[in-house]
Formats: sequence, structure tokens, C-alpha cells
Amino acid sequence: MEMSTFVYKSWHYNDNKQDQMATLIAAKDSSSIEDAETIKKACKGFGTDETALISILAHRNVAQRKLVRLAYEEIYHEDLIKQLKSELSGSFGRAMCNWMIDPAERDAAFINEALKKATPDYKVIIEIACTTTSEELLALKRSYQFLFKHCLEEDVASKTIGDIRRLLVAVISTYRYDGDDIDESMAHLEANILHQVIENMAFNDDEIIRILSTRSKKQLCATFSTFRNIYGTTITKGLLASPNDEYMTVLCSAIRCIKNPQRYLAKVISHSLDEVVAEEHALSRVIITRAEKDLNEIKDLYFKRNSVTLDNSLAKKTSGNYMTFLLTLLGNN
Amino acid sequence: MEMSTFVYKSWHYNDNKQDQMATLIAAKDSSSIEDAETIKKACKGFGTDETALISILAHRNVAQRKLVRLAYEEIYHEDLIKQLKSELSGSFGRAMCNWMIDPAERDAAFINEALKKATPDYKVIIEIACTTTSEELLALKRSYQFLFKHCLEEDVASKTIGDIRRLLVAVISTYRYDGDDIDESMAHLEANILHQVIENMAFNDDEIIRILSTRSKKQLCATFSTFRNIYGTTITKGLLASPNDEYMTVLCSAIRCIKNPQRYLAKVISHSLDEVVAEEHALSRVIITRAEKDLNEIKDLYFKRNSVTLDNSLAKKTSGNYMTFLLTLLGNN
Repeated sequence: MEMSTFVYKSWHYNDNKQDQMATLIAAKDSSSIEDAETIKKACKGFGTDETALISILAHRNVAQRKLVRLAYEEIYHEDLIKQLKSELSGSFGRAMCNWMIDPAERDAAFINEALKKATPDYKVIIEIACTTTSEELLALKRSYQFLFKHCLEEDVASKTIGDIRRLLVAVISTYRYDGDDIDESMAHLEANILHQVIENMAFNDDEIIRILSTRSKKQLCATFSTFRNIYGTTITKGLLASPNDEYMTVLCSAIRCIKNPQRYLAKVISHSLDEVVAEEHALSRVIITRAEKDLNEIKDLYFKRNSVTLDNSLAKKTSGNYMTFLLTLLGNN
Repeated sequence: MEMSTFVYKSWHYNDNKQDQMATLIAAKDSSSIEDAETIKKACKGFGTDETALISILAHRNVAQRKLVRLAYEEIYHEDLIKQLKSELSGSFGRAMCNWMIDPAERDAAFINEALKKATPDYKVIIEIACTTTSEELLALKRSYQFLFKHCLEEDVASKTIGDIRRLLVAVISTYRYDGDDIDESMAHLEANILHQVIENMAFNDDEIIRILSTRSKKQLCATFSTFRNIYGTTITKGLLASPNDEYMTVLCSAIRCIKNPQRYLAKVISHSLDEVVAEEHALSRVIITRAEKDLNEIKDLYFKRNSVTLDNSLAKKTSGNYMTFLLTLLGNN
């Protein structure tokens, strides 16, 4: 429990801007005891009242959900997540459990799962490592050790190889500076280094990994826009002009995540709703991880990209409780 | 101040064993207000009563020193460290200020200083990164960002090159698992990998850096002793049979720090007191950083190594307030 306190604190909102970008409509005043009782009732006997679960839990923010879990444990001496796991199944069950778990533990589990695949899902690792803040990534690392008795770095390093390993390990390791200070002359200098790397087609160069993995995100954004000002093209375009291998894809994902996480995530959602791909895990991962952060902005970018609202696309491709749950998290009442 | 609270907590002793290994004789009951007043008196007018300063401050533990600073600030609206800096000079002034600064800030400053040299002092970076716990290293990183508006990783990465950079960045980045769980079969497997690397003379191999920088220290100690059991020699001997370059020295330092930090630090002190080298910075660095931790054990190892007590060697090589201060930290009244 000691760890969770830390985690929760670090995930707490700290500005109004974030609230405006969130899609979650959290209840203004909810009682965790009443919530726990209603949930218990919804789970009683044969069958489960999924609608009741959605109407409560899809309207609770991270602090409220934590309190509901504590109240449930207190009153019924049962772990709410375990209860939900035994009651619910399929995509809906999975999404609801991920919604209820502490965010840092959830993200640690996402990465662990990505690492367990025959070919690790590098993009999930990059997505989580590059769209979280330094404090969130640290909380994730604490949770990872708590859950898996290993450090995140050793598992990523031992399950990957070559250039991808160098890039991934560097990106997940660094405790980046999160402050506002930017060094314009360094942005200039490092834009030139990156240009040189691209010119020489030395894409696995130590320098590109060093810059991407250690500089603050604000500094990197300054470097990226300096690059565009000087060379009239974006770094990712420069990189993608080259032969397309797996390392390059991971590298470009990292750059896009850092440059504009919302746009990157809108792309991930679009891809997940694609006729051919239909990646349910990615769909709920992005909605669950961002509903309290910036999902409104991601929705806007989704619309700009696809000329159809995310709600509409989602309603077409999903159904039942799973659909209702995700649409509720997207701000539909 | 918020940060300092965190730092202080993470440096707090958590077992009696550590207290027994410490040399510091801290006052059982001291009043931070009285201390502040006595210090003010010692600093008044021309000259400074260094003996009074030593007799108080060299008998205060990290928590007590923090309270003295707070009391001094409260009563005199002056930062005690600034005051000490203006009163004291030379080796003694430097040592006293380092003793009074918050440990995480002090270690962050040591690394920053090591990086500023024309050729960075790699060994200081390795010493600090490999002899601190994960939580201490994290506190150091927070302090580093707070002091220098950069993250530790970016400064180390931008001021070093080649294999040394790969090793240093990896070692300082990882938030290592600090738990007790050891995997014996992995120790066996990785002892074999390390042996292979040594056989092939591929000392800058990704694998050696991966293993050293990401595994927990307990796991690494298991791997090192498995290595010795199977191959009848230590890893460092295996490595040093090869041509001696700077990277190899840094690599061996890292291994020695992880294997037995006290023995490594006893060696650093011996070296610092050497007729030829006489490295005052290293001498006070080790005494100041370990006086509250395990300096007793380091003293024993020093004696085993040199057949003369550290107190005697130190008294021969140093003098004045500097000597008195260090001898007091070494447990002399």
C-alpha cells in the first residue's frame, strides 16, 4: 500500500488544462462505500449487471476508483479487481480491469505483456515510455519491480537485441528532466548532428540514440523544430526516406511520441480500428490510459485524420458492454 | 524544500547493522537551536573558531545536520552552508561544506564536478553510481535536475564518448531492482556469457554492459561467485589479463564496486593517501560519504590491506583542522 500512495500522488492532476482535455465525466460527489455496495449487488448471484458497473466505474476518476477499491476491500474483504476478473470476460472484462488497476501497475503490466510475446511489441514499450512524464515512468518502474521482482531495464534488455535494444533500453532508463529550461544553441547544434546522421544514413548512430533518450522532451521539440526550420523537412521524413526496417519504425515512433503524443495516439487508435488490423488491445489501451488526460485532444486529431468521429468509428467496430464502456470513457453519458 | 524531504527520507538508516558499521559518533541528544547559536558565535568577528565547529558538526548525523541548517536559517535568515563557505577555506572548508550539504545534492555535485574536468573523472561517477542504493541514486538524480536543470543521464552522455559512454550511461540510468530475489540459473547462464566475452576478448560487448548495468547487485554477486566457482578465477582477473585501456579500468571499477563496495573504497582511500598521488578530494569524499554508513568496515579493510590503521596514515598525511575533522568523522573523540 505504501507504494500505491506514491503512485497515486504522482498521477494526480496538477492543472486545469489537463481536465479540459480529458473525456472522462467523473461524478462530482460519489461515496466510495455506496459504490462498493452497488458493485457488490451488481455481482451477486448468477450473471452480472454490467450496465450498473459501467454506470458507476466509467464515471470515477483515478482517486475515486482507488477509494472504491479500498472501500470494497474494507467491507467485503475481497479484492475488487479479482472480483471483476471472475465476473467479467472478453474484451470488456479486460478493459474494465485495466481501468480499475492503479495506472502505474497497469502500464507496468502492459509492458511486461509486450515483452512476453515471441517478438516483443516494441511500439507498446515506446508508446508508454515516451508518452508518460518522468514521474509517471518512475512510478511505473517501481510498480514493475513490485510486480515482477525484476527491474524494467533488465527485462527489456534481456528480451531484445541489437539496435532496437540500445534504443529501447536508453529510452526507458533515463529519468528525463521535465522542467521548462531550453537551450536554443544546443537545439541548433543537435539538429545539425541529427541532420549529419541522416545524411550519412548512420541511423543507428550512438548520437541519435543519445539525443533522443537523454534530452528533455521540451528540448527535443525545440531541436525538432529547429531541424525543420533549417532543412525544410521533418526528421521523421528524413529518416523514412531510408530503407524501412524494424529499428527505423521504432525510432520514428519514439520521435513522433515525443513530438506530439496526442497525434501519435490518434494514429494508434485509427490503426486499431482499421478493417484489416482491428487491434482491440491497442484501442482500449489508449482510451483507458488517456481518458483522464488528453483524450479530447486525441479525439479531435482522430477526426481531422479520418473525417469521422472516434465515437462513430468505435460504435461501428465494437458492440455490447465493451462498446458502452469505451463510449462512456469517451465522454458519452 | 519539498525535494529535500524526499531525499532525507531515502537516506535515513533502516537497520542496526549499518549503525554498527558507521564510524560517526553522533550526539544522543542535541538541540538544533543551541547548535545554531554556538555555530553563529564561532563565526562571529574576525577569525573562526574551527574547533567549536568541528566539535559540534562532526558529531551530528544527517537528520541532525539538516535540523541545524533549518534552525540556522530560521534564526539568522542565512544559509548555514553559505556562511561556512565564507568562513572556511581550503581542504577543511570544502570537506565541512560537503559534510553539511544534503547527501543527494552533495553526490550530484561530485558527479557534476567530475564531468567538468577536461577528461571526466569516470571513476568518481562509477564509484557513486555503484556504491549507492537504487533509492539513493534516484534521490541524487532528482537533486541533479534541481541543481543543474539537466538530467544526470544527458550530462554524462554528452560529456563522454565511445565504450566508456555506453558503460557509464547504462550504469547511471538503470533503476536497479534492490530486492533479495536471486535467480541461480540466470547467474549460471550469465557467468557463461561473461566468460565467453572474456575468451573472445570482446570486452566492449553489449552483453557485458547489459548484465552489469541492469541486473540487481545481489544477482550480480551471485553471477560473480558462480563465475569463480566454474572457472577458478575472478572476472576482474580475467579482464585485466587483457591490454589495459581506460575503458577496461572503468569496467573493472564498476565490477569491484558492485562486488564489494567497502573493499573498493578502502582501495580508493589507500590510493588517495599514497605518497605519489595524495588525492585529498578522494580522501574526504569517501570519509564524508561513508562515515554514517560503513566506514568501520572500510577501516578494517584498509588495515588488512596496508597493515597500518587509517587513522595513523591520515594523521601522517594531513594536518590542522582538516585532520581533526576527518579523524573525528572516523570515530575519534
